[in-house]
This record gives sequence, C-alpha cells and structure tokens, in this order.
Amino acid sequence: MKEREIIDLLASLAPGKHSDLLVGIGDDCAVIRKNADQSWLVTMDTLIEGVHFDLTWHAAELLGRKTVAVNVSDIAAMGGRPLFVFLSLGLPAEFDPQWLTEFSRGFAAACSEFGCLLAGGDTVRSPNGIMLTLTVLGEAESGRVLLRSGARAGDVLWVSGKLGRAAAGLELCRLGMIGESGLQDLVQAHLDPRPRLELGRRVAQEGLAHAMMDLSDGLATDIAHMCLRSGVGIVLDAGKLPVSDTLREAARQLGLDPLHWMVAGGEDFELAFAAAPDRKGELLALGRDLGVPLTAVGNFDTRKGVRLLRSGQDGTGPVQEDISFAGFDHFPAGDNAKKI
Amino acid sequence: MKEREIIDLLASLAPGKHSDLLVGIGDDCAVIRKNADQSWLVTMDTLIEGVHFDLTWHAAELLGRKTVAVNVSDIAAMGGRPLFVFLSLGLPAEFDPQWLTEFSRGFAAACSEFGCLLAGGDTVRSPNGIMLTLTVLGEAESGRVLLRSGARAGDVLWVSGKLGRAAAGLELCRLGMIGESGLQDLVQAHLDPRPRLELGRRVAQEGLAHAMMDLSDGLATDIAHMCLRSGVGIVLDAGKLPVSDTLREAARQLGLDPLHWMVAGGEDFELAFAAAPDRKGELLALGRDLGVPLTAVGNFDTRKGVRLLRSGQDGTGPVQEDISFAGFDHFPAGDNAKKI
Repeated sequence: MKEREIIDLLASLAPGKHSDLLVGIGDDCAVIRKNADQSWLVTMDTLIEGVHFDLTWHAAELLGRKTVAVNVSDIAAMGGRPLFVFLSLGLPAEFDPQWLTEFSRGFAAACSEFGCLLAGGDTVRSPNGIMLTLTVLGEAESGRVLLRSGARAGDVLWVSGKLGRAAAGLELCRLGMIGESGLQDLVQAHLDPRPRLELGRRVAQEGLAHAMMDLSDGLATDIAHMCLRSGVGIVLDAGKLPVSDTLREAARQLGLDPLHWMVAGGEDFELAFAAAPDRKGELLALGRDLGVPLTAVGNFDTRKGVRLLRSGQDGTGPVQEDISFAGFDHFPAGDNAKKI
Repeated sequence: MKEREIIDLLASLAPGKHSDLLVGIGDDCAVIRKNADQSWLVTMDTLIEGVHFDLTWHAAELLGRKTVAVNVSDIAAMGGRPLFVFLSLGLPAEFDPQWLTEFSRGFAAACSEFGCLLAGGDTVRSPNGIMLTLTVLGEAESGRVLLRSGARAGDVLWVSGKLGRAAAGLELCRLGMIGESGLQDLVQAHLDPRPRLELGRRVAQEGLAHAMMDLSDGLATDIAHMCLRSGVGIVLDAGKLPVSDTLREAARQLGLDPLHWMVAGGEDFELAFAAAPDRKGELLALGRDLGVPLTAVGNFDTRKGVRLLRSGQDGTGPVQEDISFAGFDHFPAGDNAKKI
C-alpha cells in the first residue's frame, strides 16, 4: 500500500460533499468558500523526528522555521497568503526546555516573516521523539486560486530556483559534511527552506499559469500528481533542469549523478507551474523582477506519465524514460502492499 | 515545565494580533471571523499510540470514531457545528492495511454521524507507532460562541452526564477487565466517547450559559482553566458530583475511591458550563428534552482556585481542599521543570 493508496482509501470512505468545500483531498490545500470573493486555503503537514529531521544536525531554531516554511509553501503553491497557524507539538517527557525555547523562537520568527499568527494547537507527550504537525489557514481571491488540476496539453512546465539542492544538503548532513566549505547553500536549503510566497502570489494574481504546486516529494512524484489530476502527461528535458554549480560540485565530490537529486530529491519547496507558451515573456520578466530564476523544463502533452528525455548512456541519441512517482514515498511498496 | 507553561511559552513568542482572530490560544477552539454573523471555530488534537490509546484493547474502528469524537467535542464546547476535518495520519512502515481499512471505516462513520467531512490532511511514516492529529473547522453564530472566560462569581457550574467513567473504563482495560460484565458502559466511555454536540448547540443558542468547555483532562484541571481565564474561583461539592452506579461498582471491585476518577480522570468529553442561578429551570428542562442528565456541582466565587468541599475523613465537618490542576498533565513537574 503506497502513500497514494492510503489517501485514496481515506477519500473513498468520506465521499460527502459540502457546497462550501470547493476543493477537497488531493491538492496542496483544501479550498473553502469564505465569502463571495475570497476563499480559505487549509493545509496540514507533519514532521517526525527520525523521518523528516535529525536533531544531530538540525538546530532547534532552524527546525522551528522549517516547520512553518514547509506548510506556508503549500499556501504559496495555490497563490495564497498564510494567516493563521495551529501547532500540535509532541515532546518526549524529558525534553530540554532550552531546546523548546530555541524552537519557539525560530517558529515565531518564521510566522512573523511570512505574515501569519499562531492561533492554537495542542501539546502532547510523545514517547519516541519530537512530532510536529502544523495546520495553516490562508486566504486567496476565489477566482485566482491555482490548482494542480489545470494543466493543459501544450502548456509549458516552469520551475523556480534550482532543483535537488535540499536533497543534496540532506545527504551532506548524513555524511558528516555539514560544514563543507563551498557547499553551504545546499545544507541551508535542507535546514532552512524558503517558501516562494511572493512568486506564488504574483503568478496567481496575474493569471500567468493554469496549474501550480510546490515541489516537496521530488519532481518525478510531484509532477506525476499534477499530470494525473490534469489528465495530461509531460516530457521533461533533463538538459533543461536548473542545476546549481554547488550541486554539480557536491555530486562530483560524492561521485554521484546530480540528475538523481534534481528528479527524485524532495523538499526543494520550489514552485512548479503550467503556463501557456505565450506567457514566456511575462514569466521571465516576473522572475527578473523578483530575483527568482524561472526555467521552462518540459512540455505537457496528451500521453500518459512523466517522461524524462535525456541522452543515451552510450552516447547515442536521446531516450525517454517514464519516471512517474519515482520521488519520495513514505510507504514504498513493501510487505503491506501485498496484503490489500 | 508543565503543559501550561509550554503553551504560555509558545503564546508569548507569538504575540501578534489580527482583526479576524477573535479568540486565539487558550480556549477549546480558536475563533475566526467568517462574515458579519458567523465565525469559524478551529481545533486541533493529537492522539499518540502508547499515550492516548493502546491497540491491545482499542479496536481500529472505535479508534477511528474516537479520533473524530474528541475533536468534535471541542466544537461542541463552544456551541458550534463541525464542518470539515483534516487528518494527519502517521503509520509505521509495516502497518496492516486491514487495520487501516477498519480505522477509516470508523473515522468515516463518525464524520457522517457528526455532520462533518474529511477535506484534507497528510500521510507520513511514523517510526514508533501510530500518530493521529486532527484539525476540525466548525462554525457558529458570532454572538453565540461560548468561551471559557465568561464565568462570573455567583454562577453555578453544571456538568452533563456522569463523571469519571472514561478514566474508570481505561483502568478496567489496563487491568485486563475489558469484558467485565456489568461494567461495559465504562469501557465504552473510554473506547467510544460521544461528544455532546446537540447539548452544546442548545446551551449556546438559547443563551443559557456564560462560559462552557468540555471535560478532557479531568474536572480539577479543566475547571481550573475556566476559573483562571474567567478571573474567578469555585467551590465544588463532592457530594453533588454525578456518579453512575457502574462507577461505584467498579470502584468497589478495585478497592478505590470513585471520587478520584470523577475529579482527576480525563476524557469524559462531557460539557461543563457556568450559568446564572436563575437558569436552573430552563437547564433542567433542556436536559430532560435531550435525555442528558445535567447536574449543578459547584458555585463560582471571587476567591482563587478550585476547592473541593467534602466530609472530613475522620467524620468531622466538611473540609475544603484546593485541587486546581490536579487532573491529567502530559508534562507533570519532572526534571525539566527545574531547568527553566
């Protein structure tokens, strides 16, 4: 049973409808009617010690910031503004109050930076490590909310920033290379990601895209979701994926192919959006205006799946490989997959 | 560092204000302005395996129901209607799909019963047992929301149902007495609690109370919160606390004082509310109408603390004992309390 199958099971058992629920399970946020012009956006994400973070290298203050950032990124992905956050904080019985103070400082600073407010939550004892669940309520103009489901054949896929940086940074932390000179921006991308709030707002407000989402589970998985929900497929051009010099350098030092991080690495929290080809000029101008690199990396079509186009390994012509859902999965097919 | 101190720390670091946030941290729900007449209620609660539930006696389907019920109870406590729920589901890598199917069935049935809809959430791998966090969005008429902070000296404290049943039921489960004949209603109270939605709605709608909350951490702790936030104190009359025959019988079999469960036992999810003395007749009529016992158990005054009035142990006249916050605390003063 894979992560998608769990979500499908839950969704199938709760098939009800409510006239104010404009978008339910399956997008970055649920969309709920607020009034005639505006909608609420609601997102919820959990970070678990040993799965999402490791305290040996994740300082409390940065973890506090990241807890807010990864959730706010889902609001950015719909083109919204975050307003209120709710934190469920699971702590071991013998937690260190100093740790909590530093975590809270980072958490509060991120809330302030992103314009949202802690409005409630829950505090519980967690017998095995720290557990952080955040719910964020945001808002957006109803006609301007960007869903995953709007991509059309013929659209171009754009991504912000560079890809694979957070996954490479995590690998550096794991290998004890957290202080490696020249590779700090990768480590920071993992420890202290920055959601693309302003970019998301502008793309949505200015009607520049048909669909948008954030990149949290790796391009291969995230774009597969966008394709599935939009009823389209895509060819990604490996040669166009935006790669940073430090990513190349880290890959060189570790003897790895940087493409793996860019395609399958999670937690970049960059935005990916589908736009008509004729919006290219406006998008490039917006990227320059915000100082955010925007790169066209693929073309949507009517075939199925996410296909990666790259040169053949033996130097022959380009080959296409289906990489749908090859990113991070909390429940990769294991024993339990056979039981249902 | 106790649970209240953790919450105070978080609140102190996030002191901002927003004109639409009518009630923030510290009540059963946050209250957010929806439109001129209505407010959103938002609550979040986490259940962790080994802390809040034990799978050896908690059947998956009932746990699914309880996950919804304990959160909906917070909406009931403000006089609201639950509308949308968001579930963060943490599962071990090798979870049993059959368990998940049964959990989901109970979860969906409870959503349907309480009139709410699963609208989103998150699915993550949890390395040490199951973790369930729910956020519920509800609504209420803005002028009718009942807070914890409205109790006044001179008010009477009312509670619904009987007290201490869930705590006694949990104790029976722990002792391997889950199937004990004649005590099943206590076990059910622990495994499958029922939020008092209709009662909460009616009390709020008909303006019968000044303050209301649900009983989740035990009367001593819950009412201490109500007193603190209302700037009042209370005398609880031990002789008036509503006790069920089965609770007396369980206490007799285990050689315990039923009063301990009634005062300090958590998870009853009954409602407690402060009402002017002259509402007695209307409240008793409402209780009869709904088939829910309502009992006046104490009187608010201007002194500090929650004081329990009972007969002296040596048969002398009644004595008062301060029991403020003597209920369940996830972080009872331990080593970490000395560090801050």
